[in-house]
Amino acid sequence: MRKRRVTKYTIGVDLGATNMRAGLVSEDGSIQRIRKCATKASEGPEAVADRIAGLVHKVARPQWPSVAKIGIGSPGIVDKQGTVRIPPNFPGWIEFGLAAHLKDTLSVPVIVGNDVNMVTYGEWKRGRGRGAKDLVCITLGSGVGGGIVANGQLVVGHHWGAAEIGHIVVNAKGPRCHCGNRGCVERYVGAVWIVPKVKRALAEGVPTIMRQWVNDGAVVTPRLLTQAARAGDAYSCGVLGEMGFYLGVALVSIIHLLDPELIVIGGGIARAGQPLWGPMRQTVSERVMDLPGRKVRIVRSALGDRAGIIGSAMYARERLRCGS
Amino acid sequence: MRKRRVTKYTIGVDLGATNMRAGLVSEDGSIQRIRKCATKASEGPEAVADRIAGLVHKVARPQWPSVAKIGIGSPGIVDKQGTVRIPPNFPGWIEFGLAAHLKDTLSVPVIVGNDVNMVTYGEWKRGRGRGAKDLVCITLGSGVGGGIVANGQLVVGHHWGAAEIGHIVVNAKGPRCHCGNRGCVERYVGAVWIVPKVKRALAEGVPTIMRQWVNDGAVVTPRLLTQAARAGDAYSCGVLGEMGFYLGVALVSIIHLLDPELIVIGGGIARAGQPLWGPMRQTVSERVMDLPGRKVRIVRSALGDRAGIIGSAMYARERLRCGS
Repeated sequence: MRKRRVTKYTIGVDLGATNMRAGLVSEDGSIQRIRKCATKASEGPEAVADRIAGLVHKVARPQWPSVAKIGIGSPGIVDKQGTVRIPPNFPGWIEFGLAAHLKDTLSVPVIVGNDVNMVTYGEWKRGRGRGAKDLVCITLGSGVGGGIVANGQLVVGHHWGAAEIGHIVVNAKGPRCHCGNRGCVERYVGAVWIVPKVKRALAEGVPTIMRQWVNDGAVVTPRLLTQAARAGDAYSCGVLGEMGFYLGVALVSIIHLLDPELIVIGGGIARAGQPLWGPMRQTVSERVMDLPGRKVRIVRSALGDRAGIIGSAMYARERLRCGS
Repeated sequence: MRKRRVTKYTIGVDLGATNMRAGLVSEDGSIQRIRKCATKASEGPEAVADRIAGLVHKVARPQWPSVAKIGIGSPGIVDKQGTVRIPPNFPGWIEFGLAAHLKDTLSVPVIVGNDVNMVTYGEWKRGRGRGAKDLVCITLGSGVGGGIVANGQLVVGHHWGAAEIGHIVVNAKGPRCHCGNRGCVERYVGAVWIVPKVKRALAEGVPTIMRQWVNDGAVVTPRLLTQAARAGDAYSCGVLGEMGFYLGVALVSIIHLLDPELIVIGGGIARAGQPLWGPMRQTVSERVMDLPGRKVRIVRSALGDRAGIIGSAMYARERLRCGS
């Protein structure tokens, strides 16, 4: 009888512009241990890579080096070789062979994917998307990101730039987005636009429960907006409702283009509940074309902010051969 | 030495609501012979299937039955088994096992795909898209249709309803489309909307060279509009320019979502030249996010109205095993 070599754990790293987190992940997707440190992006790509290596050692001990595969989710454009290009908020990082550098440093196989694609991979393999062949994952945060699985494969695109879901146009002649385009869904839904909008409304004297909270020292965040909506604040419900509407419109375009069976939505704002989800679902159900048997499930992420770590680890487990 | 059985020809059928065409197609995608007949959709699915069988026999003679594989592009939702659901403008056709019926009638393997997916397959395998792994094909006609290839595979979606490119939203609060949605790109670009718009403008006395032509007996069609634009007619250039703008906006969403290397545009209106293509290209180049190395080619179909026949034949050649 041949003995199959089973890797019990793999490591997933979620690289962010401020912090990085590494997790020791078992085959079923549960995280055994998690470690975190500052990214210190300003010190440049080599220094960041060395900090990743340090964090990996820390989280892998005492199993190291039997933990033989490492997956990393990185911001920016990530190609097949694990070269990372222009990650946003990493000053001076134009192009860096992150996978190659870490392979040399750690002497184990390393794979790098785009961070939101790794979140998508996590949701697909160990989250709400298990078993799906066609799914779309969306993360709602400062911006709007996403990942696509079609025909049982991650869609990365020809230039490693697919699934820029935040920059689907919902309004051809709408306001300009940071990306240079007009009327992107991110322009109506991204926290980077919503928070200043709420602050302006407060300054203009719009009646809202948030005014008292802010006077008491609270900071305007998507969470504050959500709390206000939960407390029945009409203004906050209106803001979240408009976000839900535009998100729903983007989902209509996505569904018409990709016809997924499942859409998984994660990120902080996804926790806003009915004030966001109600108008979003209503927009989709009013506007999507009926097809025989079509019922697209739209669900909230089950993995939350662990999806990136779990996804990276699963990506490494499935894509890397030992010694590659 | 084993002798490999080579099928020299396969048959591709392009099924339309008014007419159907069948072609005897060689491996290199050239059409040896083409036959056409009325579809007579009102006679019901069995009668249509029998007419397809008759046309296939006609085009295949004298090679029949050595022409052992038949591919069909059909309107409507087409599943893996070749069951066709609700093809538009086929009255009373709810659901019909077209592939199964024809397999019984003809005693050779038959495969059926959605018509626009077959056009896409043709452009991909024997047209401008040869060798591409990620491409999008768009057809401009009464409506706007399309097909998607990602990771070297046709994307059909979970309910066989992907690539409804005409129903990408370009204007969330725009006018209502026939599909029930608002602000679909088809609403701004489909001939079914453009022709009545031009007629209304003529009735309202808008100055255009088309007035004289219509008085002389010409009918308002996309072609007439194109001819007028070529003759320097400002109104017609304006109409085509607005169509190009909205088409460009839809392309921006498509590029952000799928990051293809190539977009192939076919159908009558694609022949409109600079008045349409200029604003379309300009919109895309102004609005698409820059990525390292990104250069999406946007080209006109080379196969024209033969793409569906060639695509169906190639689909049969590659997907069907003899005896399946």
